[in-house]
Amino acid sequence: MTAKKAESAPYRHGGDVWSATWDGKIPMEEILDLSANINFLGLSPLVRQAIVESIDQVVHYPDPKCRRLIEALADHLTVPPESICAGNGAVDLLDHWLHAVQARRVLIPEPGFGQYERAVVAQGGVAVPLPLDEKRQFRLDVEAWKKALREEGCDTAILCTPHNPAGWVWTEKEKQAVLAHLESSPVRLLVDESFLDFLPDGRALSCCPQASENDRLAVLYSLTKFFAIPGLRLGALITDSDIIKGIVARRDPWVVNQLAQAAGVAALADRDYHQKTWEQLPQERNYLFEQLSKLPGLTPLPSDSNFSLLYVAESGISSTGWTERLRRRGILVRNCNTFLSLGERYLRLAVRDKAATDRLIEAMRAVLAEEGML
Amino acid sequence: MTAKKAESAPYRHGGDVWSATWDGKIPMEEILDLSANINFLGLSPLVRQAIVESIDQVVHYPDPKCRRLIEALADHLTVPPESICAGNGAVDLLDHWLHAVQARRVLIPEPGFGQYERAVVAQGGVAVPLPLDEKRQFRLDVEAWKKALREEGCDTAILCTPHNPAGWVWTEKEKQAVLAHLESSPVRLLVDESFLDFLPDGRALSCCPQASENDRLAVLYSLTKFFAIPGLRLGALITDSDIIKGIVARRDPWVVNQLAQAAGVAALADRDYHQKTWEQLPQERNYLFEQLSKLPGLTPLPSDSNFSLLYVAESGISSTGWTERLRRRGILVRNCNTFLSLGERYLRLAVRDKAATDRLIEAMRAVLAEEGML
Repeated sequence: MTAKKAESAPYRHGGDVWSATWDGKIPMEEILDLSANINFLGLSPLVRQAIVESIDQVVHYPDPKCRRLIEALADHLTVPPESICAGNGAVDLLDHWLHAVQARRVLIPEPGFGQYERAVVAQGGVAVPLPLDEKRQFRLDVEAWKKALREEGCDTAILCTPHNPAGWVWTEKEKQAVLAHLESSPVRLLVDESFLDFLPDGRALSCCPQASENDRLAVLYSLTKFFAIPGLRLGALITDSDIIKGIVARRDPWVVNQLAQAAGVAALADRDYHQKTWEQLPQERNYLFEQLSKLPGLTPLPSDSNFSLLYVAESGISSTGWTERLRRRGILVRNCNTFLSLGERYLRLAVRDKAATDRLIEAMRAVLAEEGML
Repeated sequence: MTAKKAESAPYRHGGDVWSATWDGKIPMEEILDLSANINFLGLSPLVRQAIVESIDQVVHYPDPKCRRLIEALADHLTVPPESICAGNGAVDLLDHWLHAVQARRVLIPEPGFGQYERAVVAQGGVAVPLPLDEKRQFRLDVEAWKKALREEGCDTAILCTPHNPAGWVWTEKEKQAVLAHLESSPVRLLVDESFLDFLPDGRALSCCPQASENDRLAVLYSLTKFFAIPGLRLGALITDSDIIKGIVARRDPWVVNQLAQAAGVAALADRDYHQKTWEQLPQERNYLFEQLSKLPGLTPLPSDSNFSLLYVAESGISSTGWTERLRRRGILVRNCNTFLSLGERYLRLAVRDKAATDRLIEAMRAVLAEEGML
């Protein structure tokens, strides 16, 4: 993973229900999409209502200052409003932050979210991979991270917690060790907290308060995963207010559409949705974990978030084989062969409710039976 | 107008109903917004329906390839799908195109849409003003344009037809003269056709067919003005397919939200909406023109589009004075003092229906009466 021509970058993400249904063979409502890490509760009724009630406002330009949304985010993230800007999804702000800090050599966890590399290369930087150790279930080793920063001469780093695709969240100790390193080194750090809301104690592990007063630390926050609105696009960046000002002045003023702004305000206020997610997620995740563990040749990795890596190498079927055979049954899973270090050995599965997990397990059993493994 | 620090760029556009209503003194539904050039028909019922029916799809990522939308645009603009990319509003694509062609010195009409300069400066270029002649009602002089390109050493130009804020559309002869210049000179040209759909014969004056096979010619197309969906954000860029490929590969894959994609498909198919706009616009524009012409000290400029400049210098009230006094009456107009060449002499008014025009005229008469001019 070194600097590549952006022109050759393929789409390598989950959640592409449009390609899966484009030939018309499977209707979208029959698709079970486990390839994108979206909240299993789906769209909150309150968010849906906010969207419907805001439709008449689309005849106006969106609020360029995203005032109500920024107020709600400031409250939720407990940071001053001037240290926040909203964006057309978190990835939009990833691009803007990398440009704003003029990131040159950027240390990126491998495996890691594919858009990091695309964004670094797009603005002229070099993406330097930090290999995460498969034996440690891809958990961050802070000492190895510090060593790589130094030895690779990186001016910038991106970390993701909970980590996509591995699912671990950093501990308070790991967080403190990472932040302490910023004190003693001139490196800049972007912490992608896109999945942190899935943890009831997520706010305590967030870097938002620190980022709001540090021009070398930024947090990427996403509303699309937790609130199940990826189709609307909504993210935020939290960092020093001067960097925020620079980004806002440089970019298109109407970047956040009005329905996303309205949805975001309603979503952040929906405390029942938060509570319900926190109560159900551990149960649904445990159920998925238990059911997968019963199948021969399949090993789910523990996860703190709403998705899990599944080790499939011992099943005798490659990750591409699994992906194709489940797709034929209307189930989308994330084929992890696009992560260079994962080869054909892993799938990533979103945690969903019992009915969805049962459908997945039934399909997997059918595939295993075809192979004579059941 | 030379290169400026983007950090200092203020918001200087119409359509900011959010600021106008933020203090709560005037409810949004009582605002008459003539400051943004949005179709007076408002949201098409078919587009509204498409948005409502697509809300359940926001739990999925948007189609990264915008397939249905691109098909509809290819049909509407009569260009191959591979020469189109959709964007988060036209301004989003303005930024991407300027970066893709590495525009350095960009000739921009003055007065002209403020985002041109912001976008040029944001990607490291210099915005070179092409003064439009007030005596010619700011109409483009192609010979003067060619001379300025040469003398100012510009590698890139932006033209807007129908021109915002002046309202003229170029003639077939002017279009041919501009395109002929591209043959004999290495300059690149972006033609902003954001308002061209407002003309029944607009397609005949479009550069889309030429742009689809020319890597030095591009067209910026907007769906937000004609279809009254600025709050959703939706635009397109038409140019050589290799440039399109490069832009798509470089950017965030999910940049066009799914509700905008669905709205765009429904909007382009709504032929009644097109027909109704073309039938009513000349009538409504004539009515506005006639009514304004009856007021002392006010002179509307002829327009081919859905907005008009109004010369207010002879009324004894500055454009800022007019803007403030109409705002107090719940009417937003575009104060043209942010266009360097227009000083305090012009307002820009969107063409709306008779009821809206009557409300505007009544308010203007009240202001004139206060000044003892009526």
